[in-house]
Amino acid sequence: MSTTDRHPLPRMHMITLGVTDLPRATEFYRQVFDVDTTGDHDEVSFFCLPGVWLGLYPIDRLAADIGPCVPHQRAGFSGVTLACNASSRAEVDLRMSHAEAAGARIVKAPHDTFWGGYSGYFEDPDGYHWELAWGPMFQFDNAGNMHFRE
Amino acid sequence: MSTTDRHPLPRMHMITLGVTDLPRATEFYRQVFDVDTTGDHDEVSFFCLPGVWLGLYPIDRLAADIGPCVPHQRAGFSGVTLACNASSRAEVDLRMSHAEAAGARIVKAPHDTFWGGYSGYFEDPDGYHWELAWGPMFQFDNAGNMHFRE
Repeated sequence: MSTTDRHPLPRMHMITLGVTDLPRATEFYRQVFDVDTTGDHDEVSFFCLPGVWLGLYPIDRLAADIGPCVPHQRAGFSGVTLACNASSRAEVDLRMSHAEAAGARIVKAPHDTFWGGYSGYFEDPDGYHWELAWGPMFQFDNAGNMHFRE
Repeated sequence: MSTTDRHPLPRMHMITLGVTDLPRATEFYRQVFDVDTTGDHDEVSFFCLPGVWLGLYPIDRLAADIGPCVPHQRAGFSGVTLACNASSRAEVDLRMSHAEAAGARIVKAPHDTFWGGYSGYFEDPDGYHWELAWGPMFQFDNAGNMHFRE
């Protein structure tokens, strides 16, 4: 690689999930995060969360935006998990209850893990997987960003 | 929902991609972000990026961690796009060149979009889709977080 090619990506700014029912998915995440969408858009929803935004977009339009060879639906496992880390086991339990009350399907109830943490998974209405986790190696700064404990 | 259930998720802390060849994927993202992994792990890679971490984990183990009914491979479109936003069209072009030099497959060369921005897509070695985008409605604060322009 020549030096003129060195323009690395600095980070992620947005994760977009392709969804089959935008109003349903938007209402689900409005409840899960207890925040409203930003902006006034009919065809896309933006949750401007700290750190990284969550976008929701109809999956057929998301696929078409990438290119004509991308399937307009998905089958099986997305291959991706989205994690929200907590400061304690109790916080994992409370957040899982909140997600369940918002309509999440609990796939794996929180439990102690082989890596010394505590974690569970839920699915959103489109089958995307979220992990809620606590681990003794993780800590948070005042801005809410996660770091490895020194 | 009762008031005792109100423990919403605050944000995302980590996005994990299930990969088929962990050393290959790790080397790819090491080059794309020009940062090294954090910690010393043989079976998982953590890129502690600002805002949200990127995790890489063998897809069969990721699926098994969620539960026994999750397929150990994925087919077609993940349904998810990961975006890195830039401050200018030129920055999108430069970052796309950098990603290509690291081994990314350009799926859609950057071009002007219907929403007034400029965007392109690449695929990582496992076929996950990244969008590199610029838009006049987005701006960044000193910490690198993205906001809608006022």
